[in-house]
Amino acid sequence: MAYFTWDVASVSLEDTKILIIGAHRTAGHAITEHLASRGHDIITVGRTSGDIRADVSDLKQLESMWQQAGTVDAVVYAAGDVRYAEFRDLSSSDFESAWQQKALAQINLVRTRLEHISPKGSFTLISGIPSRDPVVSGVAAATLNGAVDAFVKAAAIEIAPIRINAVSPSVFTESMDTFGDFFPVDLSEVARSFQKAVEGASTGQTIVP
Amino acid sequence: MAYFTWDVASVSLEDTKILIIGAHRTAGHAITEHLASRGHDIITVGRTSGDIRADVSDLKQLESMWQQAGTVDAVVYAAGDVRYAEFRDLSSSDFESAWQQKALAQINLVRTRLEHISPKGSFTLISGIPSRDPVVSGVAAATLNGAVDAFVKAAAIEIAPIRINAVSPSVFTESMDTFGDFFPVDLSEVARSFQKAVEGASTGQTIVP
Repeated sequence: MAYFTWDVASVSLEDTKILIIGAHRTAGHAITEHLASRGHDIITVGRTSGDIRADVSDLKQLESMWQQAGTVDAVVYAAGDVRYAEFRDLSSSDFESAWQQKALAQINLVRTRLEHISPKGSFTLISGIPSRDPVVSGVAAATLNGAVDAFVKAAAIEIAPIRINAVSPSVFTESMDTFGDFFPVDLSEVARSFQKAVEGASTGQTIVP
Repeated sequence: MAYFTWDVASVSLEDTKILIIGAHRTAGHAITEHLASRGHDIITVGRTSGDIRADVSDLKQLESMWQQAGTVDAVVYAAGDVRYAEFRDLSSSDFESAWQQKALAQINLVRTRLEHISPKGSFTLISGIPSRDPVVSGVAAATLNGAVDAFVKAAAIEIAPIRINAVSPSVFTESMDTFGDFFPVDLSEVARSFQKAVEGASTGQTIVP
């Protein structure tokens, strides 16, 4: 028996249709397995694999994805590459690319679906640790994670009762080789944070696994 | 007599050459007047007025600005427009433009000058309140301010001993008509925060006036 009612579930576990973008990557795979084990109905999206194939950082492909997905209850984003390199080696294009892939893609995902997600629906985006605990070579990641964290906090007050949160894992999946020693990641903890965001009641939060 | 040594000055007040971008706008003007009154040597930069004319969000004009400015001790940024509108009325282009003007312009300002600023030099960027205290219609501003706050925190550990901070005023100058009642702004406090960033010793901080 729990001592407190930690974020009592606001959605039914049955017939909850969850769209997971980046479902076949490292973090996305763990999240997908975990949410499926909870009894949710999952639609996977990826650039090269999944129920729907789309690069959601492209506005046309994003629109096509929505047409194929129909109405969903929850949207989970678990993709978005950012180049890790020393600041002096990062170009303006590296920052621009990080913005497109990590921040704008997630912003557009929310922006283009507001009219169609179910009223008790939710968006769960992904940010990451460098914005609150910097590492050398992580400045582009930090910058765009900071944007995502601020976006969910601000968007929450305008899209309610639809909820929006970000999960900020302790390491980016693409940087695990480099920073795994600094930031050991437990993918089951990451998956549980996404579960909390999808099944819980919080909004406007950055959830740290 | 002060009770504590609040951020003892790390730069000499004489012969400190400060480049101020956006010097002729509302906040920039107050900052410029205040820093000039402290005895600093000021170079003003603006799109249509100032000692140097440049739109620093354009990489070529940014480079030209640096060639005209030479070596400086401190760089202050007090510009960057972001569209305030309800989230459902903001387009992908609005977010892209906010990124370019508010975040990438400041990132490139730092990125392109690292080799040439004096060893005890500093960058002072500008963010704003919506990233920590959201308002309706402020989601683009919140997102990019969050990016700037995270950028200075992360960049600081890579560019030391050069310092970098952001000042986060209680309201954006361009939104004073709309949000002045929510967030009354005291420009002399904003100017003093820039003074603290330029003359003080802190780095990686978001300074709230």
